[in-house]
Amino acid sequence: MELDKIKEREIMPGFHGKIINGDNITWAFWRIDEGSELPEHKHIHEQIMHVIDGKIKFTFDGKTLVHGPGSIVVIPSNMPHSGVALTQCKIMDVFTPVREDL
Amino acid sequence: MELDKIKEREIMPGFHGKIINGDNITWAFWRIDEGSELPEHKHIHEQIMHVIDGKIKFTFDGKTLVHGPGSIVVIPSNMPHSGVALTQCKIMDVFTPVREDL
Repeated sequence: MELDKIKEREIMPGFHGKIINGDNITWAFWRIDEGSELPEHKHIHEQIMHVIDGKIKFTFDGKTLVHGPGSIVVIPSNMPHSGVALTQCKIMDVFTPVREDL
Repeated sequence: MELDKIKEREIMPGFHGKIINGDNITWAFWRIDEGSELPEHKHIHEQIMHVIDGKIKFTFDGKTLVHGPGSIVVIPSNMPHSGVALTQCKIMDVFTPVREDL
């Protein structure tokens, strides 16, 4: 597959995603509009977030931090988390098991 | 975590990796020297490979293709695969379950 040829979908307001599913892994490539908010939520899926470009304010496990290019955040299963894009962002998320809902 | 601060290890000859482990996900960030070879192997771990920079000749499921920036390859559990870096490469791999051996 070529990332350029995968269709982007606006999965939540301001969150434009390209979603790759294996059998047990989802890899999401996000382009996020400045100011877009991710309300607090949780899921059984373990998640690892990696910021490629931009700045995102991200809250989980009682801590709020601003993450920029190169940041990596490991979010355990069922851990509530939320965020807001302080600038336009490019972010990758990987999940297991597959995010059937994306 | 900041990718810049994670120590790189030469895990196989020419394969310089930064390895992030969650509970069930391993995310590997590779810098691969030109000409480095990945001998055919397989593992129970499902794998998704994403090429960031460079060109890698990669064989799995009876097909050999050259992958460049933006390529994504989903490698099912226990599928034999091999490769050779045709140029210096930057590649990301995600695995589930965790690669205890990396």
